[in-house]
Amino acid sequence: MKRIALAGIVAAFVAASAQAADAPSAAASDWRDVDPQNLVLLDTRYGQVAIELAPEFAPINAARFKALVRAHFYDGKSFYRVIDGFVAQGGIGEGTAATKDHPKDDATNTQWPQLKAEFDRPIGNDVIFTPLGSPDLFAPEVGHVDGFPVGRDAKESRMWIVHCPGTLAFARDDKPDTASTEFYIVIGEAPRRLDRNLSAFGRVISGLQYIQKLERGDPDVDSGVIHDAAKQDPILRVQIAADLPAVAQPHFQVMRTESPAFAAKKEEKRNITSTFFFRKPPAILDICLMPAPVKRSGP
Amino acid sequence: MKRIALAGIVAAFVAASAQAADAPSAAASDWRDVDPQNLVLLDTRYGQVAIELAPEFAPINAARFKALVRAHFYDGKSFYRVIDGFVAQGGIGEGTAATKDHPKDDATNTQWPQLKAEFDRPIGNDVIFTPLGSPDLFAPEVGHVDGFPVGRDAKESRMWIVHCPGTLAFARDDKPDTASTEFYIVIGEAPRRLDRNLSAFGRVISGLQYIQKLERGDPDVDSGVIHDAAKQDPILRVQIAADLPAVAQPHFQVMRTESPAFAAKKEEKRNITSTFFFRKPPAILDICLMPAPVKRSGP
Repeated sequence: MKRIALAGIVAAFVAASAQAADAPSAAASDWRDVDPQNLVLLDTRYGQVAIELAPEFAPINAARFKALVRAHFYDGKSFYRVIDGFVAQGGIGEGTAATKDHPKDDATNTQWPQLKAEFDRPIGNDVIFTPLGSPDLFAPEVGHVDGFPVGRDAKESRMWIVHCPGTLAFARDDKPDTASTEFYIVIGEAPRRLDRNLSAFGRVISGLQYIQKLERGDPDVDSGVIHDAAKQDPILRVQIAADLPAVAQPHFQVMRTESPAFAAKKEEKRNITSTFFFRKPPAILDICLMPAPVKRSGP
Repeated sequence: MKRIALAGIVAAFVAASAQAADAPSAAASDWRDVDPQNLVLLDTRYGQVAIELAPEFAPINAARFKALVRAHFYDGKSFYRVIDGFVAQGGIGEGTAATKDHPKDDATNTQWPQLKAEFDRPIGNDVIFTPLGSPDLFAPEVGHVDGFPVGRDAKESRMWIVHCPGTLAFARDDKPDTASTEFYIVIGEAPRRLDRNLSAFGRVISGLQYIQKLERGDPDVDSGVIHDAAKQDPILRVQIAADLPAVAQPHFQVMRTESPAFAAKKEEKRNITSTFFFRKPPAILDICLMPAPVKRSGP
């Protein structure tokens, strides 16, 4: 009796997967530990999302996000604007007047100032940029810095985190320096037009699948805002891993994107040799299909 | 008291959204009705997904899928391999031996033959190809045919549906002509390397958000197969709209991708004029970020 040789499908699809993270040949030196001070744990009703912040790209915005987290600002708020294929936006949203206030500084009773935009940063020697080695439609050059997907313009001497699925950034009003508390996570085909127009300051390193489960708004009605609070998925809790007791802290490692192991992974994906591919695909990498692999250890 | 001017965020993000479908200026002639014979309704526990088949690209594969649907083959089966950011694969999966059999023809008691691959098709005058008007990294040329995202190679005189979020195709074993019943829907950043390597024969025109809610497998364990059947999200029912009573049939319209209205939408997105964009993005369109708008009417 004929059976479907699923094993074949499975093995072949592994080669094509965007997510297959394992690299058995990678040495310990090919990985770096995620600093618990930059590790954000966001609890949804579907599971915990882990985000690595990138203070080297947006120090003011990353620091503000951490401060808001530590002030428990987001706990009990919601994802109130979720557009399938685009972004999930969270924060205080369309709540009552009281919940729409900015946080106040307890000591001085003054409101926290709006955020200075950090849409890009200078190319500098403090970080290692590793070129992807494939052309890109939106940036003169793309590659990775510390596991983050990055665009670079050598002429302007600027670099920036690009909008891939999982990129974390602050929303804002029309003017550049108008972000305050509302954030978004990219959940769809990379909206690269947003690059250098918003302050991107982190990426989801685990649990993006839980963000994908969030209740969606109707993109044709009020730009995807979910007005019925009962339908909004809550942000149950957000914490910085460093604030948890040591035994309760999850540990993540990100493959060093300047490592030989990552270079090998890129070449494996760029030049596909699996016999599953009847027609050899163009030897092109998409920056957003080449995320730095992540490993989890600990609780 | 300072409030967040959410209206500004919302209005500006509309311009950037991949999904904003409305085009108030479009005339009735800019839309075509989706043929109920090509309209598949797939019920998940999260909601109904509508898929338009593309028999002009893969007549054998589209016909087989319809025949399987009409034989109730998929009803009660599951999404057993779901990899976040890549694909949701459904069908008989890793079930018992009995459920792994191909369907049999009742009249002849012979098994349905495996499927002939239809990875691409000749460029022909039976369909209208409208170029996107932007370069592409994976195909010599990209554009739309009847609302489907398409790649084209004039030298080889071939065209094919490209792998965008929502693209429907048959999975297969290593050899080209080995598809049978298992299908997948793209749920992540466009895996363009699969183009012309699998038979794509449709696209989700509504409800991709429900596919995004499906339970995921672990991509590092058996390529994302969910072995615990209790964790697999079921395919509750699949129907062809034409088989429903007329009053129960949903009606969908797709913007004609050869219409002036769609040309205008492309230009609006290619040359962004919103003042939200402090830095004007490159005048580039990504084929997978320019889906043909869809309208629903009827029940």
